[in-house]
Order: sequence, then C-alpha cells, then structure tokens
Amino acid sequence: MYNALDEIRREIKAQGGSDEDIISIDPDELHAHGYSEWSTVNPDGLPVAVAYPRSTEHVSVIARICHKYHIPIIGYSGGSSLEGHFSAPYGGISVDFAYMNKIVQFNKDDMDIVVQPSIGWQDLNAQLSQMNSGLFFPIDPGPSAKIGGMIGTNCSGTNAVRYGTMRDWVINLTVVLADGTIIKTRRRPRKSSAGYNLNGIFVGSEGTLGLVTEATLKLAIVPEETSVAVVSFPTIRDAASAAAGIMQAGIPIASMEVMDEVQMKVINLGGATAPRVWKEAPTLFFKFAGTKASVQDNISRVKSITKSNKGSNFEFARDEREQQLLWSARKEVLWSMLALRKEGEEVWSTDVAVPFSRLAELIEISKKEMDDMGLFASILGHIGDGNFHESIIYNRTKKEEVEKVEKCVKNMVNRALDMEGTCTGEHSIGWGKKASLLREVGPDTVAVMKQIKGALDPLWIMNPGKIFDVPS
Amino acid sequence: MYNALDEIRREIKAQGGSDEDIISIDPDELHAHGYSEWSTVNPDGLPVAVAYPRSTEHVSVIARICHKYHIPIIGYSGGSSLEGHFSAPYGGISVDFAYMNKIVQFNKDDMDIVVQPSIGWQDLNAQLSQMNSGLFFPIDPGPSAKIGGMIGTNCSGTNAVRYGTMRDWVINLTVVLADGTIIKTRRRPRKSSAGYNLNGIFVGSEGTLGLVTEATLKLAIVPEETSVAVVSFPTIRDAASAAAGIMQAGIPIASMEVMDEVQMKVINLGGATAPRVWKEAPTLFFKFAGTKASVQDNISRVKSITKSNKGSNFEFARDEREQQLLWSARKEVLWSMLALRKEGEEVWSTDVAVPFSRLAELIEISKKEMDDMGLFASILGHIGDGNFHESIIYNRTKKEEVEKVEKCVKNMVNRALDMEGTCTGEHSIGWGKKASLLREVGPDTVAVMKQIKGALDPLWIMNPGKIFDVPS
Repeated sequence: MYNALDEIRREIKAQGGSDEDIISIDPDELHAHGYSEWSTVNPDGLPVAVAYPRSTEHVSVIARICHKYHIPIIGYSGGSSLEGHFSAPYGGISVDFAYMNKIVQFNKDDMDIVVQPSIGWQDLNAQLSQMNSGLFFPIDPGPSAKIGGMIGTNCSGTNAVRYGTMRDWVINLTVVLADGTIIKTRRRPRKSSAGYNLNGIFVGSEGTLGLVTEATLKLAIVPEETSVAVVSFPTIRDAASAAAGIMQAGIPIASMEVMDEVQMKVINLGGATAPRVWKEAPTLFFKFAGTKASVQDNISRVKSITKSNKGSNFEFARDEREQQLLWSARKEVLWSMLALRKEGEEVWSTDVAVPFSRLAELIEISKKEMDDMGLFASILGHIGDGNFHESIIYNRTKKEEVEKVEKCVKNMVNRALDMEGTCTGEHSIGWGKKASLLREVGPDTVAVMKQIKGALDPLWIMNPGKIFDVPS
Repeated sequence: MYNALDEIRREIKAQGGSDEDIISIDPDELHAHGYSEWSTVNPDGLPVAVAYPRSTEHVSVIARICHKYHIPIIGYSGGSSLEGHFSAPYGGISVDFAYMNKIVQFNKDDMDIVVQPSIGWQDLNAQLSQMNSGLFFPIDPGPSAKIGGMIGTNCSGTNAVRYGTMRDWVINLTVVLADGTIIKTRRRPRKSSAGYNLNGIFVGSEGTLGLVTEATLKLAIVPEETSVAVVSFPTIRDAASAAAGIMQAGIPIASMEVMDEVQMKVINLGGATAPRVWKEAPTLFFKFAGTKASVQDNISRVKSITKSNKGSNFEFARDEREQQLLWSARKEVLWSMLALRKEGEEVWSTDVAVPFSRLAELIEISKKEMDDMGLFASILGHIGDGNFHESIIYNRTKKEEVEKVEKCVKNMVNRALDMEGTCTGEHSIGWGKKASLLREVGPDTVAVMKQIKGALDPLWIMNPGKIFDVPS
C-alpha cells in the first residue's frame, strides 16, 4: 500500500503536475472521508489515504497505480450522501476532488457548461448569476451536494417534477476507468443516438464503474417570474389528491412538495422563517415559474384545484426574501431535524418512490406505523414524482430504538416495492440499500448490473461493496 | 440451423403457446426482413428464417435455442430505420414482433402505459385518443415507426425540443437476454436511483444487448390548445438566428423545424397541402401547445423574434384540417422525396447533430457542397436540438453519383464532429455509421461499449455487426 502511495507521489511529481503532496494519511482526514454523521449506515473500515488530485491526469495516475496493486478507489465530493456511499469497507484510497471545483468552459450560446466534479450546484448557480447569464442549473438536491456526487447518485430534488433528474442534464462525461484509461462519453451535441448511452450508465453508478473528472451539463433559462405558495389540508390524502389533480391537468408547476404536520412543526421550531409561523398541518408547497402571464394562469388553476380538495389558507410568500426563506426552510429540513437531536440521537433519513397514484396510501400507512411505534418522524415528498422522504430521530445507543427504526424503514421500502415502486427515488443504493435493490429488481437483473461492473472493473476496485456485494 | 428451427417449433408447441407455425422461411419474407429500400446501406446476406413470437416466453425460447446453436438474432418491428439496422449480414433469425402489438396495461392515474414492441406510436396515440384519456405519447419519429425500434434507436422527432427523446419516456423494459433469460429493468416508479440505469443502456442499443418484449412508457397530457405556424426567411442563417433567439428566450414551443427552399418545393410538389402553395424559401415551422393563454403569449413572442430576424409571412394554419395537413406534410417529407424518384433513383437520408450555435454554419456549408456537386438534396432540421436531416436523390446504378453522395455525407458527418457534434442525432448507427461512431468517440470509448456488449452477449449473437464490428 505505502509503495503505491509513494509511486503515485513520484509519478505526479514527474508529470510536473503539483508541487504539493496530493496524498494525506492524516487520521482526521481518513475519518472524515470514511464516516458520515448523516448516513443511515457506516460500515467498519476507513480509507488508508486521501488523494487530492488537481487534474484528470492525476486521477488517471492514481487509478493506474491502484489497479496495479489492486487497491480500492472511492470518489468523494460533497460528502452529503445518505447510504454510506463514500464509506471504505475495504480500505483503499478516497479520491477527494476538492481542488477540482472549477468551471472549465461556458458555452453561453449553446446553453451548456463544462465543470469539474467538486463544484457545488449552488456555487455553480451563484457563478451563473454573477455572470448575468440568464441561465441556471436546475437540479437541486441537498444544499451541500456537488456535481460529482450528484452524477454518482443520479440525484434530483424539488425541481424534478419540472426539470427531471441529473441524468437528463448531462451532455458528456470525462471518466477515468479502473485501469486509468481516460474516456469521454461523447462530444457536445444536446441530443445523440450514436452508440451506447454511456452517460446513462455512468450517471447513477455511484463511482463503481469509473471516476467522473469533468462533465458537460445542459443549462436552463432563468424564468422571468417565480412565485411560492403554501396550502394546508386536513389530511395527507387530501393533499395527495390535490396534487394528482394538478398533475393530471398538466399544469407546469416548477415544484410541488408535500410536508406532513410534523415537518411543518420542525420548520417552525427551526425558526428559519421567523417571525412567520406556519400552520402545523399537511401542507403543499408550490413553486411557480415562467412568464408573468403563465405564472398567473398556473396559480389560479392550482388555487381552484386545491380548493376543491379541501385545501385552505392558500398563502403566497409576501416578497422575494420570504420566498427564499420559505424555500430554504424546505431545503434545509434535514438540518432542522439534526438540530432537534438530543444527546446520543441521530436522524435516519431515507427515500422511496412509487407510482403517483399510490403515494398517499403509502405515506398514511408508514406514518401510522411510526406513530404506533412511538417514533418521532417527519415526512416530506416530491409529490409530483411519487417520491418521499422519511426522517426519523432515534437514539443510536438504544438497541431497541435502532431496531424499531430499521424495522420501520424496511417495512416502508417493502411496501413501496409491493406498490410497484423503488427503494430509492433519488438517494441511490450505496452500502445501505443493497438488500432492497435485490428485492426490487431480482437476482437476474442485479446479475446484469454485475456483468457490466465486471466488464469495466474486472478487479472490483472501484468503490467496492456499493450497490451490490463484492463476489466472493 | 434447421435443427434449431425445429427445436424452436417443438418447444413453443410444447408450451402450448401457439397453434400456428411461428417460423417462416418464405423467400419474400426473408427479403423483406433483410433488405430496406429506405436504408442508406444494405449489407449482403439475409436472415435464414423469420420468427413471429406471440409472447415474451416465445422470445425467450428463441433466444435460448439460438444461443445453444450460436445463431444470430435480429429484432424487427416497424422496419423504417435508415442505417441497415435490421439487415442480416451474418444470417440468423429475424424476430418480427408483428403479433406483439398490444397495450398490455393502461395506468391512467399514473399517466403511464405498458405496451408490446410492435405497437406503432401513431396507433398508440389513436387508441389513447379513442379512450378519451387526455394523454398521449409525445415521441414522434417517422410515421411507421414502432415502439420496439424506437427504443432500439433512441429515436426522437419534431417534439424533442419540448419533450426530449425516447429514453426520457421509458419507465421500465422487459428484456430477453442473449441466453434467453428474461429480466425487467425496474418496477413502475417514474423516478428511481436504484442501481445501474439499465433502461438507459438498453434504449439506443439497437438490439445488440437483448430484445425488448414489453415497455412501460410515461405519457404526457394532451395540451388544451395547439397552433401551427410558418415563417419564411431570406437565408437559413436568418432562420437559425431566429431559432436561437427563441431558445434563449426560453419560450416553450412544442416544435420548431427548419426546412430549406428545396424541402418547401418538395412539399408543394407532393401536393399534400393543396391547394395551398408554400413560399419556396428557408422556412421555420412552429407548433405551439399549452393553455389558450400561454399559446397566445408564445405566439406573440415568437412573432416578434422572427420579425427582428428578417422573418416574413408569419402565417397560421387556418383550421385544424390545415394544421394536420401541414404537419403531416412535414412528417412525410421522406415519402415526398421518394415520390420524386425516377427510374433507378434512391434517396439517401441521414442526420447529424451539433451544438446549437453551429447549426446554421453546418447547414450552409453542406448545402453549398451538394449544390456544387449538382446533387438534388433537401434539408430539414429539428433546429431546437441542433439536429438536421439531409435527403439526397441519386441514381444507384451510376457509380459516380453514388460516390458523390457518399463523399457529401462523409464530409457532412466529419464537419459535424469537428463542430463537437455527433454523427447521428436520432437515426443511430446501425451498419452504416460504424466508422463515424469510431471517429466520434474514439477507440477507448468504443472499447467500453464493446466490453458491455461482450459482458451481456459473450457469443455476439444479438444483432451482430451493428454499432461496431464483430471481433475477429
């Protein structure tokens, strides 16, 4: 192992790539790169080293030498994944892209941009805004997520109902393969039918097939007008049937989020929108975006549909500041939950997705189960996508409580699968949901995934143990 | 070979699946399944038999027995592909899904539908309309295309600027693998991050990884209002800059197509919109769709942008009949061109795509080259996607003319690649564009595709010779 680290250092120095040591074995850094407070699981083991490459060529050197010595390679960018994605159960090198966080090329006329993996989506949008580009990147997962990890997990977020998921916004990827080979999936057309869709297979592969070192992303036009509103409902089911009505009317809302009464309480407790206090009832949050005329049109149609589904208190954010606070309160619910923890407590945050028509039923049953077990849990969902999140506070030191949470999550996942759903709508599998994936698609389909894995990474050094087990 | 055919017949009879003989060796059928009048290429060789399965299980039997005897398997549905996709250069069995053309399950509330591969997209939409579902399937390639082939080629069409391409509309696929194993890529959530995106790899793989026997497709809401309009421009470049202005303003047009003066002439000659005669000049076709208010808003904004780019004669289709005629004239340009052929003549129809900003330049240079060579060629493009088609009439019996066409096409593709484009935006590779794909993405990226191919089809029996050459 230490031979390999020295060899990496030597080769990179010989390339003239960096004067600094790009490898760290500092114990704190190893811990920070192998353990996650947010994650539902933390398998034993830490990386043996953390590498900080400055270029695709550095990453290629790292992979080539790790390949030679059969050393695992685990990509790292925002570190905000939830299922142990960047854990190091087999040791190896964590490749942290911290220094590869730049915009490489901005093609304004083509509405696309070439970026490195450690640029955050919020930072990217801040830079696009500073340039007065009139463009933005619409995929909005957790605020600290970065493009590399967002590609790895095929993330999405509140905008998905309008803009789709990560894979819809990738034009091409530069990927370092397990043996150090550098490939580019395609050139820069927005649309192509040329050969296998390698973007589609690398996006969502959680670093198990290669490391993405550069991505060309499509950008969207900043809407002329936006507006944010909330509506309360007597039950989640009423909220869900309003949401169904809106979807079936084809109203192009920008976002539509559901939160239960617990989640609304958490927002109030968090105080982010103080002095405003929200009604603690099942609530739909809407974002509207478009031209002034179309936003007005959408609002009036949504208002009428929510009204006929027992919605009350249709309220707008009063100004842009409140719009931002309100939306950021929505975006920061995980932190709000984390802030409520007492000594020894953790938050288990997980997601599933089902066909749209089954969502209300799934939420109701899952909520009831958690209540019956006496767990403090909140629910929020990207209701237009049939995708929802459950966040449960529990005490990690109490075995009984841990078992309760595990049982609740397992039941929720199985319920989602029985409703023809998926064990994860946007968080992906990582270390934590391997058994669920197997149940979801079955052994023959997982076998196909493993055949692809084996073909591109025959030594199984790329993020081993994630998505599926390493073959014995 | 004939052992294999008998074995297939026997097994399927034993399953009780079909009383009829599902295999034909009629020479006319073999020819119809191995040769295409529309295709730019027709390699030597025909299938040895055509199989007409009635179910996924039949397809599985066929694959298992072909696998045992190392016999090539080639999928067939609409037969309208343009690059020799269903040709049989290595013989084998053509699997024609003609009898698998049904809607299996319609999930209206979830806005999705499960279909068999040989349902045509037009037929699917006719059935959805008959059911008063308020839903439609928005991907619109050539009128005779069927879902199976549309998945194989990752096709798109005039609606792509608004609705994306085939891969954006696939929820799950049932696939028969090379050895007869039946897998389902996922269940029925509209969104998922669970494991590798197998939809993404099977869509666009041209039957080289497996045969799709069932697909769950997302559906879109039928817009409240539609409108069709045309505008003429002095040059293609003016049309392109109007199109760029529209895209950059973020106006959600439903379609935006460019046609050159030759193409407009072909429409007039075809007579589909008679007695109306269109101005024979570079023209943009627009489709608008949405609510009444948003359509009006979009039209007035598009009108003003085209005007400031030298557009003239902004004209609407006068009624629904004219709207349909006009749009179908656009959809049937290939037939219009075919109708113009004289004795011995053929039409070479091909497509490329480039980053949006380069399209006008590419079209101008390519048109000039064809004019200089004295070729009769028309151009039409999905200008919002940077994708355009060139259709060239030539005499197949005149070697010199064939060489001219081949040269023109090759030059156009290379020009597109030099502009960071792709050799095919929606027709895909087939037999005809393998060299272009290699030039486009390079040998290391093609090697990754071949590794995936080798992993899922180690005997290379699935549509061999397409996308890339069979390894020697």
